[in-house]
Amino acid sequence: MERKALERLLRQLRDGRQAVGEVLEKLRSMPYEDMGFAKVDTHRALRRNFPEVIYCPGKTNEQIVKLVQRLREGNGVILATRATKANFKAVKSASDGKGISYDDKARMIVVGRLPRRRKGRVLVVTAGTSDIPVAEEAAITAEAMGCNVQRLYDVGVAGVHRLLGNSKKLRDASVLVVVAGMEGALPSVVSGLVDTPVIAVPTSVGYGASFSGLAALLAMMNSCSPGIAVVNIDNGFGAGYMAAMIARPVPK
Amino acid sequence: MERKALERLLRQLRDGRQAVGEVLEKLRSMPYEDMGFAKVDTHRALRRNFPEVIYCPGKTNEQIVKLVQRLREGNGVILATRATKANFKAVKSASDGKGISYDDKARMIVVGRLPRRRKGRVLVVTAGTSDIPVAEEAAITAEAMGCNVQRLYDVGVAGVHRLLGNSKKLRDASVLVVVAGMEGALPSVVSGLVDTPVIAVPTSVGYGASFSGLAALLAMMNSCSPGIAVVNIDNGFGAGYMAAMIARPVPK
Amino acid sequence: MERKALERLLRQLRDGRQAVGEVLEKLRSMPYEDMGFAKVDTHRALRRNFPEVIYCPGKTNEQIVKLVQRLREGNGVILATRATKANFKAVKSASDGKGISYDDKARMIVVGRLPRRRKGRVLVVTAGTSDIPVAEEAAITAEAMGCNVQRLYDVGVAGVHRLLGNSKKLRDASVLVVVAGMEGALPSVVSGLVDTPVIAVPTSVGYGASFSGLAALLAMMNSCSPGIAVVNIDNGFGAGYMAAMIARPVPK
Amino acid sequence: MERKALERLLRQLRDGRQAVGEVLEKLRSMPYEDMGFAKVDTHRALRRNFPEVIYCPGKTNEQIVKLVQRLREGNGVILATRATKANFKAVKSASDGKGISYDDKARMIVVGRLPRRRKGRVLVVTAGTSDIPVAEEAAITAEAMGCNVQRLYDVGVAGVHRLLGNSKKLRDASVLVVVAGMEGALPSVVSGLVDTPVIAVPTSVGYGASFSGLAALLAMMNSCSPGIAVVNIDNGFGAGYMAAMIARPVPK
Amino acid sequence: MERKALERLLRQLRDGRQAVGEVLEKLRSMPYEDMGFAKVDTHRALRRNFPEVIYCPGKTNEQIVKLVQRLREGNGVILATRATKANFKAVKSASDGKGISYDDKARMIVVGRLPRRRKGRVLVVTAGTSDIPVAEEAAITAEAMGCNVQRLYDVGVAGVHRLLGNSKKLRDASVLVVVAGMEGALPSVVSGLVDTPVIAVPTSVGYGASFSGLAALLAMMNSCSPGIAVVNIDNGFGAGYMAAMIARPVPK
Amino acid sequence: MERKALERLLRQLRDGRQAVGEVLEKLRSMPYEDMGFAKVDTHRALRRNFPEVIYCPGKTNEQIVKLVQRLREGNGVILATRATKANFKAVKSASDGKGISYDDKARMIVVGRLPRRRKGRVLVVTAGTSDIPVAEEAAITAEAMGCNVQRLYDVGVAGVHRLLGNSKKLRDASVLVVVAGMEGALPSVVSGLVDTPVIAVPTSVGYGASFSGLAALLAMMNSCSPGIAVVNIDNGFGAGYMAAMIARPVPK
Amino acid sequence: MERKALERLLRQLRDGRQAVGEVLEKLRSMPYEDMGFAKVDTHRALRRNFPEVIYCPGKTNEQIVKLVQRLREGNGVILATRATKANFKAVKSASDGKGISYDDKARMIVVGRLPRRRKGRVLVVTAGTSDIPVAEEAAITAEAMGCNVQRLYDVGVAGVHRLLGNSKKLRDASVLVVVAGMEGALPSVVSGLVDTPVIAVPTSVGYGASFSGLAALLAMMNSCSPGIAVVNIDNGFGAGYMAAMIARPVPK
Amino acid sequence: MERKALERLLRQLRDGRQAVGEVLEKLRSMPYEDMGFAKVDTHRALRRNFPEVIYCPGKTNEQIVKLVQRLREGNGVILATRATKANFKAVKSASDGKGISYDDKARMIVVGRLPRRRKGRVLVVTAGTSDIPVAEEAAITAEAMGCNVQRLYDVGVAGVHRLLGNSKKLRDASVLVVVAGMEGALPSVVSGLVDTPVIAVPTSVGYGASFSGLAALLAMMNSCSPGIAVVNIDNGFGAGYMAAMIARPVPK
Repeated sequence: MERKALERLLRQLRDGRQAVGEVLEKLRSMPYEDMGFAKVDTHRALRRNFPEVIYCPGKTNEQIVKLVQRLREGNGVILATRATKANFKAVKSASDGKGISYDDKARMIVVGRLPRRRKGRVLVVTAGTSDIPVAEEAAITAEAMGCNVQRLYDVGVAGVHRLLGNSKKLRDASVLVVVAGMEGALPSVVSGLVDTPVIAVPTSVGYGASFSGLAALLAMMNSCSPGIAVVNIDNGFGAGYMAAMIARPVPK
Repeated sequence: MERKALERLLRQLRDGRQAVGEVLEKLRSMPYEDMGFAKVDTHRALRRNFPEVIYCPGKTNEQIVKLVQRLREGNGVILATRATKANFKAVKSASDGKGISYDDKARMIVVGRLPRRRKGRVLVVTAGTSDIPVAEEAAITAEAMGCNVQRLYDVGVAGVHRLLGNSKKLRDASVLVVVAGMEGALPSVVSGLVDTPVIAVPTSVGYGASFSGLAALLAMMNSCSPGIAVVNIDNGFGAGYMAAMIARPVPK
Repeated sequence: MERKALERLLRQLRDGRQAVGEVLEKLRSMPYEDMGFAKVDTHRALRRNFPEVIYCPGKTNEQIVKLVQRLREGNGVILATRATKANFKAVKSASDGKGISYDDKARMIVVGRLPRRRKGRVLVVTAGTSDIPVAEEAAITAEAMGCNVQRLYDVGVAGVHRLLGNSKKLRDASVLVVVAGMEGALPSVVSGLVDTPVIAVPTSVGYGASFSGLAALLAMMNSCSPGIAVVNIDNGFGAGYMAAMIARPVPK
Repeated sequence: MERKALERLLRQLRDGRQAVGEVLEKLRSMPYEDMGFAKVDTHRALRRNFPEVIYCPGKTNEQIVKLVQRLREGNGVILATRATKANFKAVKSASDGKGISYDDKARMIVVGRLPRRRKGRVLVVTAGTSDIPVAEEAAITAEAMGCNVQRLYDVGVAGVHRLLGNSKKLRDASVLVVVAGMEGALPSVVSGLVDTPVIAVPTSVGYGASFSGLAALLAMMNSCSPGIAVVNIDNGFGAGYMAAMIARPVPK
Repeated sequence: MERKALERLLRQLRDGRQAVGEVLEKLRSMPYEDMGFAKVDTHRALRRNFPEVIYCPGKTNEQIVKLVQRLREGNGVILATRATKANFKAVKSASDGKGISYDDKARMIVVGRLPRRRKGRVLVVTAGTSDIPVAEEAAITAEAMGCNVQRLYDVGVAGVHRLLGNSKKLRDASVLVVVAGMEGALPSVVSGLVDTPVIAVPTSVGYGASFSGLAALLAMMNSCSPGIAVVNIDNGFGAGYMAAMIARPVPK
Repeated sequence: MERKALERLLRQLRDGRQAVGEVLEKLRSMPYEDMGFAKVDTHRALRRNFPEVIYCPGKTNEQIVKLVQRLREGNGVILATRATKANFKAVKSASDGKGISYDDKARMIVVGRLPRRRKGRVLVVTAGTSDIPVAEEAAITAEAMGCNVQRLYDVGVAGVHRLLGNSKKLRDASVLVVVAGMEGALPSVVSGLVDTPVIAVPTSVGYGASFSGLAALLAMMNSCSPGIAVVNIDNGFGAGYMAAMIARPVPK
Repeated sequence: MERKALERLLRQLRDGRQAVGEVLEKLRSMPYEDMGFAKVDTHRALRRNFPEVIYCPGKTNEQIVKLVQRLREGNGVILATRATKANFKAVKSASDGKGISYDDKARMIVVGRLPRRRKGRVLVVTAGTSDIPVAEEAAITAEAMGCNVQRLYDVGVAGVHRLLGNSKKLRDASVLVVVAGMEGALPSVVSGLVDTPVIAVPTSVGYGASFSGLAALLAMMNSCSPGIAVVNIDNGFGAGYMAAMIARPVPK
Repeated sequence: MERKALERLLRQLRDGRQAVGEVLEKLRSMPYEDMGFAKVDTHRALRRNFPEVIYCPGKTNEQIVKLVQRLREGNGVILATRATKANFKAVKSASDGKGISYDDKARMIVVGRLPRRRKGRVLVVTAGTSDIPVAEEAAITAEAMGCNVQRLYDVGVAGVHRLLGNSKKLRDASVLVVVAGMEGALPSVVSGLVDTPVIAVPTSVGYGASFSGLAALLAMMNSCSPGIAVVNIDNGFGAGYMAAMIARPVPK
């Protein structure tokens, strides 16, 4: 409940248009919608500046369809992450299908049109080609949140000249998302070259002692270069979200 | 070496005022100063917008004193982190002592005056009182980098009303540093209340299955609320640095 | 062997109706039934107030059928956990099929009727929708043990108002089962709002650094809020059992 | 703020005795006291039926003294856990010293008199003698919360007859706290003998592959006997608190 | 090469029937047979009192058949562990099929007849029914090595009377193999009841925080009862081998 | 209570010399002595063929002295492990001091005379010199239990000829205790040379990725050579106890 | 860009044949080729003496084919590791198929002819037969880089005579690659016998507490024998590459 | 025993100058010297080209002195690693003190003169100043083994220009030792710049999620750049030894 609504409610009470009991009850009622299997946080767009995002694993097609329908009301773009092609088809066929697309690299369903007018420059960087799906999840998320996004892929530290040759691109961004598996060294090197924050994303790319991304995660947590913060392994969505919050801040 | 200097150098070569060999050599020489035990990255303030910071553990008093002296030239504020009182005394007595202070909660030496004109609002939040030293390290770092910093301490999730009672403070900040040990749940709850990025700092506060902060670190990495990125356990400095980069971005 | 039987036996010995050797042997024999592949603890219902429960993984359909048949004698409700649909069909077709049902969310076979008269109020809470199967396992177990069970699903900490909006429900229960994956923060927040014990159940919901539920487990073990105890990852059955023991104690 | 106070406030608004702005502000203010370094949750006794407990590590004597003084107002018994003898002396000398005692096995300061009239029977069991300090922390906590507490120490599974010889004691309790280090097997065996809930406490007693209590913790999480829930390693306080909540429930 | 052969060789050299170079070479040549993909340790039966055993995973049917053929020469019983049914069929059809059998619980191929005259009493005990495959691997191995083997299955600690009711069986054995998953508590309890060595076998039975047997392994390593030593998770073969070495020692 | 005593008791009941109630009580009373802080398992020597051993860490001098006094009655040799010199002095000065000695390498107090007539040959082997304290703990334990013990120290695998040069010694033993830190490879190599069981003891000798003995423990659990079982890190006592049980079995 | 090219460029600038802006740009441009999904490090053969190698997992057949085509230009041998048979067919059918072969043990595609004239002697050793695929990956890599490679397979430490019988082979090599799973003891023993460097490769061969090669990795890191360095679990390619660099060094 | 000695022995047997029994015995005796607490591998210098090195932790001064005296005979340089100043004084005062020095950064005692004529170029690189002690241990070891050693310290990846500015130095070495703590990224970047092998040494420099060097170790194991092999955390000695073996190979 927004502050204005609360003020109005209290004024109604003062003016005798509401009973104490009713107000008590309304003060307690919160802005979400109970759908049985889920409590949709319809208030989130107001509170956090972007609507709730649907994380698909463990949800049935029916549940995803219902959540899309409910969230679509009054919101510009709806994202569903880690979606399968089957999820996408279900969502598409449950509507007129307009404005619903699927990115199979990023495994995301985008409902609605990405914003045309964008602000802030996010650069998404990967160490290798296998890191691209995670990077695309980040990129599309940041685009959906209204940022300009550029990509710089396959510039891992084994050939550092590939990175240095793109230093202008690196320095032009207002925030960087750096995606790397294996030894996870890229964020440290990138961060040392720029004056902007770096969101580091460890990936599960690798084998053996990479322990499904743990090696990269630990490396990124221990970076000797300040100006880096880390999200979960393979969490492209979280990185893109964080980057967009930084690149396109809510005016205060 | 800055772009302008490089252009000038190349023009001198073109104009015959420099020999090929000399230019070759200069192209190779990089902007750091070799002090034997260390290569001071004197270029860092230009490249990254804040000078190198001295991490004291494992360095002798002599080394710290020399690094302070070298970095002080031409820079406004110098920070030395995880400094002991003995480190501080050595630094103080090696100079006229002016403008050198020590914060014993944050264990930091500050050389030079913190900037007066500040921009951006950083809010540093802790779950408990034991998290305060890490929080202060973050706060002083962000202040040194030119941000306005507010504190909100001891608002852990066991009494969530303490947090909700400060929601205005939370929503007014342009970036939050949230410091918590034990189960590390605070960043998730805080993040759900605001529309700004949250830098989460796990601390080693706790015992038993906290495994010196690992429990908090894992919890923060797995937050169900987007808009969170994590730094190393007890890394207040890194969190403050990241927050300042976000709160007070270099104009692009 | 119950105390009364033992007294009778000893009296028979005293009265010469039993030989020393026979009594020696009977003192050694214990109240279980040896079925070859298993030793059914038929004494358990007397000793622990609820009969042995069948954990299905690693057992053949034949073994499950036999165990159900043996345990059914003299007991009201029999539970078989982590059962597949195939297990259920085998159990159903091996009997007249009456009073045998299967819950596919909770993956449980219930043999016999759940008790009508119930005591104690158990509330089962989940952070997200993916935690529901584990929650249902807890709920059905507590119902089978004679408790009133309520559900409150999808009230994770990213939108804490969903939780606060249900505080009456939370405070009305006599014991809570709180189920959460990812960062496992929900039990701490819930526990801070109530004056009743919380059984925390970490789930394997999540990815990357959740390490199949380890992150949630560690978070719950380290809760800053007293009044929480934890069961194994995904162990809905154990949580429901514990909750029922608390909500409906054996009179002493 | 309690419901009654809220109703009164709203009535005052309705009756014109309070302005809208004032009520708005009061609705936001929450029931804790800000002491600068800490926000004392003075509301906790009302909300959770027992006042906040002071965890001493990482707090100065001054801070502990102030917290004791603040919490003492209006509460019966105050506990300070993991207190050193020096903490105790500071607390004692800062008051008239009456009703302040220190238990050096449990490392607890008890301020005020333990309740005379007690309800519920808690039995605290240990595997070995080295587990006694953790057990005493549990026992004193449960006593402070108004329970009758019995002890049964050094009945580890290497001589299971010691345990069986006390089965009456085990079965008479309404809840058990079972404390064990090393392989942590005792809760499983105890739980199999009783019809009451078991709170299991792993301890850091052991060496080598006990990994400071991790082995015991994992064993207890994986117990084959239902009716067990686990608290953190060495967390006697948490176990006693949970046990008291169960043994002496708030009437609903 | 056996001592006698060496003596003979040296005598031949002394007597001029062998040249220095030839002896040099023979001293170097070791008693194994190089089959290209493997070096069969044909000397092992002499050196260790039991021939090499074939571990099937990662070997082709052809390789297993060849190894069986080679090892069969001059040895009584040949074992192939973790064999699939397909492995068995290949071995069977590559010979006259006589004296080749397959145990599908233990997943072992036995080539040759188990020894009739046996010595030493090995008792194999399991906590649950799911531990039986590992137990059978142990039992058959010990039988193949010439021991009398008894089984006692499903006597886990949740109903300790099942164990105590079999104490005679436990005390009659000369060595015990105790197999348990989950919390792995059974070896400690068993060991406390007997005066004979216990070989503990953790199994991967369990879920969640059992971490595929790690919990049981750690518990067994930390047993408070002396007289226990532990083999690898699910390593029934190793336990049976060790037990047979103890129960039927080589006379010295 | 031994079988004979039980038979006598039952006969007395039959003959009317004992009442049913008395016998009931005696059947329940178990053979241990309750010393308040400990329940001494006085029955253990009968049940397990060697009296309870005192593990000193976490016990006060007074407690150790009392336990020694109690256990000394009727037992030949009493061992106290991981004892400090101060423990020893306390034990010594609390008696006439006769027959009490301290081994400072093994950190053991031996009360009473080691048995003169010994059976079974135990060989204790170490990889390096730093493993000797653990080895001595094993050796003295096995001697106290009546075995002949030989030592073979500093024969690690980096110079395998040192081991091969002692192969007669290795093969003459009836059981081997092999103690190694770092990579823990020695038990595998030794086991491959002998036809007797090997008890492997990982030690915490090493640094870095030895993780306080974890590396050695894992290596030993995974030995490719059958006939090895493992005890806890640094657990010389447990290894010696196990070895003595094997080398000098109770006749059955 | 090679030094000579740089000198020429600078001379052209000096002589007025290049503009400052052009040189600036060229100094920045780095020697790689941007293929969209990848930045092929075409400079690597010059810089590192062997062209980039294609790691196939996570790449589509199309991507692999394009990379092979691009790298083939001007390079002698191209390797693609961890390739499936389908990868191979795609590569083969996209060209005339000449000089393209597939080794299914090593799972490698070799494009071009292995060098005829070879230098340096690499010996690849395995503990067991299951380690052979990793060993073959190492062997073929070293051959492709111009080394003579010998194999010595199945000489694990359980039968150390198999190893000693090949000591001449071991001592003749100029560098050894030693591949072992399970306890990973072989490199220590081998290293103690030779005066040449040993590259140790842990493999994921094993089960239970081998934790997919972690046990072997830790053992190898902690070897008591100097002269060993370790590569990632199952990283035959890396070991072969390192060995070739050592066996056939670039003249300096 | 060297081959020549063996041939002579066999000839004496042939010629009747030795009896069979004597030769048997000598064939068994191995070239080490048994000092009671240690078996000095006097054969090692012959077998491995460098004498045994004394690892001081866990050894008494007396033991170190005796080992130095024994090893000094016939060897050029003796190293004692991880030595304290007290160890050094004991060694010095037990001899005439000539040619015995102590390096307190590397914590090494060097007995004898470092070789004057050196071969092979080893470059030791560190990421930070805190890594220098480990680096010096490596450097002195390689010097003692006859290599030319250069140092390049404090060139971590946060300021990659410091590294690139030294690329000639990097490319001139025949082998590199790269020492780094924290995220351990330096070896990957260095390796990408050179055509020579890199020995990577993780250090325990760092805090929090560095887990005492584990993060660096895992990063180095997972390097995306081939031509790297890793030694144990803080194992400067092992890295220097390996580097010297590579830089100054035994001619074959």
